[in-house]
Amino acid sequence: MTAEMIAVGSEMLTPAKVDTNSLWLTDQLNLLGIDLVQKAVVGDDRDRLAAAIGAAVGRTPIVLITGGLGPTEDDLTREATAQALNRELVHDAETLAAIEARFARLHRKMAPNNRRQAFLVAGAVKLDNPNGTAPGQWIEVEGRIVVLLPGPPGEMKPMLLNHVLPRLRERVPRRALRTRFYRVAGMGESDVDQRIAPLYKPYANPVTTILAAAGDIQIHLRAFCETEEEAEGLVAELGAKIEAELGDRIYSTTGAPLEVAVGQMLKQRGATLAVAESCTGGLLGGRITEAPGASEWFLGGFQVYGRAMKTRLLGLDDKMVEREGVVSEAVAVAMAESARDRTGATYALSVTGEAGPESATPGIEPGTVWIGIATPERAEARLYRFPGDRARVRAFAVQSALNLLRLRI
Amino acid sequence: MTAEMIAVGSEMLTPAKVDTNSLWLTDQLNLLGIDLVQKAVVGDDRDRLAAAIGAAVGRTPIVLITGGLGPTEDDLTREATAQALNRELVHDAETLAAIEARFARLHRKMAPNNRRQAFLVAGAVKLDNPNGTAPGQWIEVEGRIVVLLPGPPGEMKPMLLNHVLPRLRERVPRRALRTRFYRVAGMGESDVDQRIAPLYKPYANPVTTILAAAGDIQIHLRAFCETEEEAEGLVAELGAKIEAELGDRIYSTTGAPLEVAVGQMLKQRGATLAVAESCTGGLLGGRITEAPGASEWFLGGFQVYGRAMKTRLLGLDDKMVEREGVVSEAVAVAMAESARDRTGATYALSVTGEAGPESATPGIEPGTVWIGIATPERAEARLYRFPGDRARVRAFAVQSALNLLRLRI
Repeated sequence: MTAEMIAVGSEMLTPAKVDTNSLWLTDQLNLLGIDLVQKAVVGDDRDRLAAAIGAAVGRTPIVLITGGLGPTEDDLTREATAQALNRELVHDAETLAAIEARFARLHRKMAPNNRRQAFLVAGAVKLDNPNGTAPGQWIEVEGRIVVLLPGPPGEMKPMLLNHVLPRLRERVPRRALRTRFYRVAGMGESDVDQRIAPLYKPYANPVTTILAAAGDIQIHLRAFCETEEEAEGLVAELGAKIEAELGDRIYSTTGAPLEVAVGQMLKQRGATLAVAESCTGGLLGGRITEAPGASEWFLGGFQVYGRAMKTRLLGLDDKMVEREGVVSEAVAVAMAESARDRTGATYALSVTGEAGPESATPGIEPGTVWIGIATPERAEARLYRFPGDRARVRAFAVQSALNLLRLRI
Repeated sequence: MTAEMIAVGSEMLTPAKVDTNSLWLTDQLNLLGIDLVQKAVVGDDRDRLAAAIGAAVGRTPIVLITGGLGPTEDDLTREATAQALNRELVHDAETLAAIEARFARLHRKMAPNNRRQAFLVAGAVKLDNPNGTAPGQWIEVEGRIVVLLPGPPGEMKPMLLNHVLPRLRERVPRRALRTRFYRVAGMGESDVDQRIAPLYKPYANPVTTILAAAGDIQIHLRAFCETEEEAEGLVAELGAKIEAELGDRIYSTTGAPLEVAVGQMLKQRGATLAVAESCTGGLLGGRITEAPGASEWFLGGFQVYGRAMKTRLLGLDDKMVEREGVVSEAVAVAMAESARDRTGATYALSVTGEAGPESATPGIEPGTVWIGIATPERAEARLYRFPGDRARVRAFAVQSALNLLRLRI
């Protein structure tokens, strides 16, 4: 079963405002096994809105429309829906009485405009709105369902939970949902896809989705079946193939981000971590401390952005830095060793590189980053070349440093 | 002139992900006097996407499509556009060579899938993508314009600025636009709005927009007029009133973010900065070094997340820390003083607080943050109480630290 959503309101076509209702609504629909296949934002324009509603009803069995039920002349969802479905708008005396009573209860005078809210699309079931003036509307059209919901979340959410979901549940075949979730580090999106596409392609169910951020790939599997056992069997079957293929590239099966996964490994071992950051300027420590409770395993470190700080705060030999260059294996190794020494941590990570946009280091291309790691056994460094702008290079560096630590623990 | 946008990708039909590209794109179009009249998100479904593109091109003169240009089989924007416009896809040898060269430059092996990115809709003008593999495409269809843009913002934005806007400018009737832009720190959004609403409400032109992120408020004024003089007169008139009302809360009139504004002030004075971060774990240094060229004025600092590090790295008296508590005025002052001393910087900022979600410090509520500053004259600290979750508290702390420095310089 599939659904579409239309959010109504010109304000959501400005640079400042985004339709967030649809995220919560999507979650609620997904839990019933209903997939969202398209969503739109349409301004306060009756003909355009009617065309959008008509097109959606023509291709998708469930259409949820939010907003445009207010009292002003800009609120056109009722009119546009009636136009799209070729039905009349009918005045509902009971609704008007309820609106009047609400105003009386709040000791406010009802504006004449509010009468507009007492109109229903012919044939609609009225959905109570205890939190506002406009009722929702449930409309069935030749086996398809159109639902009009108010825009304010405080009105929309209770109406969906109390009146819309129970009605949808009766119409949607009961299906069981089971999911698997993998996070992968150290590979690009196209590499991951190339390796696992032959595995997931044969499966229409589970549905596989791949999401990518700098150096971090997420793989979602979702199986809908008649029974939970069947759904679990399917995600387990495909999941096992993906796990075998990607091996230790998978760092999380719970959805936990990399800093949390690494933190758990350190905590289990009673180990601690320190950092020494040059081109990331503190971002690695910032990312690590996104994990609540990081103080159990993260000690701290050194932001040695200026060159002199590498000597002054970490005690690196100035002549060595001069000879090897700031962006070098030797400096990355020495930074990690010194950070480990000076903090007493079990492990230390270091980052030194050229984030761009221009190279401050002759002969070093932007995107070149050395990441160092010091463990109780040894210190070493790896060279990376990251694509993209300054922000992306730095995000890749942070992710790669955490992944290097994960693989070394 | 009107435009529509279509964001492509099933991941944006999940509860977790929202299309944010469209906000920035809307802003850029509005600056040319182009109104957004509709936007949609369509999943990775070729027929559905082709139908959406066909409908949009049928009713709106400019259609921007973002995403779905990647290398995977799920990336269907090229195919769907060709289908909607009833055109062929043609292989472009030059594009393939550019993609291969990019992989060679990054010392990575090109996956065979990446060849898919070398196809253009027949008649399309290719738009260079120095930040990724997939080129954009500019397609004219009987006086209408269809533009294919990559989804990643780091690729999409430069492509729009460098290749799409210049082409659109030639086709849109010239209107004179004049803007004013203010960035404000140290006030909440509703405070700002309450103070300036009486000033901007009487003006339909310029249009005033207020945007808010943690501790950072942006005010945009935009006047569209027949002549530049008229538009300049209007924004200058309203701008002067807003400047008089907000005074030194305004830290930037150029759009420069706070770390850049602060960096310019330091550079002018030949001064330098260091940091000592506890609850922000490095985020302040990370934010500061977002400014390209920060090495001219930012030295570095100390991530003293664990309590012992405050003694070990900064030399704070352990008994004093015990007596005063980690989140205290005395500790914030001592951290700033020590960071200034140990780095030799002109100024040092320190942050110590409780970011939550739970309080690790008895008696200290999450959101409580002390920010310290050491200058050549003195050291002091200020107490803040920030609302919101861990991420928001930390973002507020970073912004407030930079603002405190700005006001003290």
